[in-house]
Amino acid sequence: MWSSHPQVDAGEASELVRRCAEAAAECAQVCTACADACLGEDMVADLVGCIRMNSDCADVCATTARILTRQTQPDLATVRAVLEACRAACGACATECESHADMHDHCRVCAETCRRCEQACAELLASL
Amino acid sequence: MWSSHPQVDAGEASELVRRCAEAAAECAQVCTACADACLGEDMVADLVGCIRMNSDCADVCATTARILTRQTQPDLATVRAVLEACRAACGACATECESHADMHDHCRVCAETCRRCEQACAELLASL
Amino acid sequence: MWSSHPQVDAGEASELVRRCAEAAAECAQVCTACADACLGEDMVADLVGCIRMNSDCADVCATTARILTRQTQPDLATVRAVLEACRAACGACATECESHADMHDHCRVCAETCRRCEQACAELLASL
Amino acid sequence: MWSSHPQVDAGEASELVRRCAEAAAECAQVCTACADACLGEDMVADLVGCIRMNSDCADVCATTARILTRQTQPDLATVRAVLEACRAACGACATECESHADMHDHCRVCAETCRRCEQACAELLASL
Repeated sequence: MWSSHPQVDAGEASELVRRCAEAAAECAQVCTACADACLGEDMVADLVGCIRMNSDCADVCATTARILTRQTQPDLATVRAVLEACRAACGACATECESHADMHDHCRVCAETCRRCEQACAELLASL
Repeated sequence: MWSSHPQVDAGEASELVRRCAEAAAECAQVCTACADACLGEDMVADLVGCIRMNSDCADVCATTARILTRQTQPDLATVRAVLEACRAACGACATECESHADMHDHCRVCAETCRRCEQACAELLASL
Repeated sequence: MWSSHPQVDAGEASELVRRCAEAAAECAQVCTACADACLGEDMVADLVGCIRMNSDCADVCATTARILTRQTQPDLATVRAVLEACRAACGACATECESHADMHDHCRVCAETCRRCEQACAELLASL
Repeated sequence: MWSSHPQVDAGEASELVRRCAEAAAECAQVCTACADACLGEDMVADLVGCIRMNSDCADVCATTARILTRQTQPDLATVRAVLEACRAACGACATECESHADMHDHCRVCAETCRRCEQACAELLASL
């Protein structure tokens, strides 16, 4: 899909954008799944903060994936600020999930996914 | 991620749900990309209907992916109606994109992705 | 905003669309707020089904609001199927919230908002 | 709805959050409408940059409205970064829409709505 866009070149910058868009789209799905899995646990009352953070991170990542997927006439200041928000949300969600990753496998997987997206945002920000 | 949910069994029904959630999440991204690629074409004025349909299909697919990803206490009537909406949006978007798939590679890829998601919705609906 | 669109007439059909778009946008916000308020209650374990239904309804209503807000070259079959999904989600969420509306004011307000949106979807469907 | 949350006090901070959530929810709807109205104009080819910016701003504002609407256990660093992204997107979208506000009434209304949301984000950020 990526290479069929009329205005996208095939350089390294574009590859970093594509990788970050994919990391954000995956993270949005995984955070939605983790929020729901936490909601299904018997000890849901202990996972309220995690559900909250999962929900925010899912929304921010979904928006980031959309904005990075769009290649036509982007506004660089907006892209940068969205990447910073995505990095912050993924970092906070990873920290929360890591704190009970040994009890819940979905939190372990979610924390790893968030760290990958956080890293992808950081690499893209460094290149802009 | 899927298998770590506290309330999901590993049966065939769950596998159909998982596959449809993934098809919808992929379709949401591809439709967002196709809308943007159409917007970047010189002949954008001829692609207005396609951009409109891509935008609707991206939104419906993103919502469908979220709802199918949630496994805790689903409401079956809502899930069914959302799947019907997703099938309708994917069918309409595929038909639109197919009509100029030979001119734009992004429309060809998008049509194929929409048909896969339409099929996944139909299979899941048939199993419910 | 509505009247500034280059392709929207000022007739009764358009007025029903506008009212339904506003009802869906409001319902998306109220369902997000109710899910979060439920999550903040001490008895969160008893509100798991409500949080699930609120989350689905918020997503379906947000998508419905966007699709109805778009007036350029709509696909009628998609619009109809989305309205059916919105009516189903709002009906299910209202029923759930009504079942504990006397204990939680946010559920009472949310049930009323869902019923209004359900009704707006039904009226618009009847007119299409 | 706001006052029925189990963990929200009635102070000035909460009032700023509520006002910013409402401004962002309204801006998301208006930007969706402006993107669609631009798409319906005969001169759509001249409005490509505006449609792009409207789409990004709609997504960022919708996410911001959801995150501000949630009051249970927020992560302050995430909230701050999301508000910065929303302020950036609204500022860029307003500047774009202002540049052809005299030709298109939907762009004039959209620019004003974006400026109000940008201002609400700035005021909330100053108070955090």
